[in-house]
Amino acid sequence: MSKYQNDLILRMINGEKTERYPVWLMRQAGRILPEYRAVRASLSGFKELVETPELAAEVTIQPVDILGVDAAIVFSDILVVPEAMGLEYQMIEKKGPWFEKTIRSDEELHLISDEIDVADRLSYVFEAIKCTKRELNNRVPLIGFSGAPWTILCYMVEGEGSKTFSKAKKVLYSNSALAHKMLEKITKVTIQYLKHQIEAGADIIQIFDSWSGILGPAEYSEFGTKYVRMICDAITDVPVTVFAKGAYYARKELSELNCETIGLDWNMDIRESRAIIGDDKTLQGNLDPCTLYSDFTVIESKTKKLLNSFGNKRHIANLGHGVYPDTDPEKVKCFIETVKGFAIN
Amino acid sequence: MSKYQNDLILRMINGEKTERYPVWLMRQAGRILPEYRAVRASLSGFKELVETPELAAEVTIQPVDILGVDAAIVFSDILVVPEAMGLEYQMIEKKGPWFEKTIRSDEELHLISDEIDVADRLSYVFEAIKCTKRELNNRVPLIGFSGAPWTILCYMVEGEGSKTFSKAKKVLYSNSALAHKMLEKITKVTIQYLKHQIEAGADIIQIFDSWSGILGPAEYSEFGTKYVRMICDAITDVPVTVFAKGAYYARKELSELNCETIGLDWNMDIRESRAIIGDDKTLQGNLDPCTLYSDFTVIESKTKKLLNSFGNKRHIANLGHGVYPDTDPEKVKCFIETVKGFAIN
Repeated sequence: MSKYQNDLILRMINGEKTERYPVWLMRQAGRILPEYRAVRASLSGFKELVETPELAAEVTIQPVDILGVDAAIVFSDILVVPEAMGLEYQMIEKKGPWFEKTIRSDEELHLISDEIDVADRLSYVFEAIKCTKRELNNRVPLIGFSGAPWTILCYMVEGEGSKTFSKAKKVLYSNSALAHKMLEKITKVTIQYLKHQIEAGADIIQIFDSWSGILGPAEYSEFGTKYVRMICDAITDVPVTVFAKGAYYARKELSELNCETIGLDWNMDIRESRAIIGDDKTLQGNLDPCTLYSDFTVIESKTKKLLNSFGNKRHIANLGHGVYPDTDPEKVKCFIETVKGFAIN
Repeated sequence: MSKYQNDLILRMINGEKTERYPVWLMRQAGRILPEYRAVRASLSGFKELVETPELAAEVTIQPVDILGVDAAIVFSDILVVPEAMGLEYQMIEKKGPWFEKTIRSDEELHLISDEIDVADRLSYVFEAIKCTKRELNNRVPLIGFSGAPWTILCYMVEGEGSKTFSKAKKVLYSNSALAHKMLEKITKVTIQYLKHQIEAGADIIQIFDSWSGILGPAEYSEFGTKYVRMICDAITDVPVTVFAKGAYYARKELSELNCETIGLDWNMDIRESRAIIGDDKTLQGNLDPCTLYSDFTVIESKTKKLLNSFGNKRHIANLGHGVYPDTDPEKVKCFIETVKGFAIN
């Protein structure tokens, strides 16, 4: 007997037969909810929210209360890891993240360290998880997360968002030894970070490789999958989800990782992905987040079309990327309710 | 007997047996060359260069002289079409394109017109082509181009570059009738535009669908391929190349177009693409442009690896996207020379 009132997502991840598909949304805790914006407005900025455990817990739980999702995901940011390693970031309104210092040469490698006290440096995340677990009171499981090493390297080199991340790729192509040194350090810290999240109460871990899609197959294998594999091999206490956005060409390779779930973006055909990945993984995704700009009837029909494509039943309904901030919460509810009303035969 | 001193690319497109692979680079006329930057520095901005036929011709020919490519591509911008239709743009240094007016509702549709005198409104492009042809003096063929209708719509709606083009996708999902009206108008003008380019002397036409990859398979079929097909069906006098970046899922559909060549980005595996597309098309691409940040020996070996993957010999060597502005021209030459030194057996 599970300790959770709703353990649907855990049963699905474990490959059990369930009555319906579990559903949650990437970026569900955030700007789509007026209740989130109210909390956020009282603060100096995004980082204050990330670093204040009680408030992070509050916005983490909002979508459980308001939207009725089957899992919570801790409100945080993948960039807390590069910051803990030595590169402070700012989150600039309407622009995104910005790092004063970047690493583009061997001489700058000393700016990051993997010899840090992760428990102390990132204690605010672990406190947020503990606080969330108390407040959630076993209603639904809690997802913890980190960025994948390649994606974290992208920000460490580039210092900000980019369409091409060509500076990061330049390091990879012109100084692969430096790239591997960075990736090793990031991987080491990330494993500790995720283990502390699990100790604090995270029931599921998701690894976000947001920028995998800018690498070609050979490069992603060498600089991407290799390090995600190390993380998957090290995290054994809870199920792991790997979401490598855009890395359609790596689906076969990802299917061989020690992880339970593979996230799919909206470009990846469900049936084709299942054929490539096989029946041993749970698949998560993959409605185009922009579908939620449609009318209710279109959202309902496109969601049902997605659910009908779930051949072998081992699926978690989600978007193919984070929900966009200007999405009407009622449209999000329409997606969620459609999933909940769809019985698995 | 061809009128060109070097007609290799035309013979390859026609499926003839050739002695080596033809090679050119997307964005070869541009900031990688000091000779380009010298011309550009004497002007008020990017648009002055685009709109001055003699200078556009000069920078179009530079890579033929300096790099030794097998084709020239007219120096211009895909955004001249939305501008001709009514939406003026500025090219802002280090930021990219910016449109004062955008189309996001039915009420704004009147801002663009397809009842324009294309020959007059875009005469500077046709003059640039004529001037280039004169100066080239039949050394190599000249490629003309346009954006694909979906990509042009992206800019008309968004008004600037974007990582997600979620505003453009919002129109597509929330008001598909408006999207189709816009796409029809853009298609009509684009066909006229390309026909005038051919009349002026363009020997090959390339259609750039730079933002196809942000749509899922069903949406790209409805809003993307449909209009590219109309263009391909209308352009019958010269061979057409379709480059739909990121639309890996549409390769089968694209293979059925009335076009001779399909461009591949660097994520698309050559052998897999050939298996999907079949033997009847020439494939173009697809070295990762960031490869040119590597050492000469690495560039040479990765280029040879690419050439060795060209199974059925019907290939044009190119990058998988435009060359980055900070690429060393000597590295570009290394790529070109490696292709030229590689004999087809």
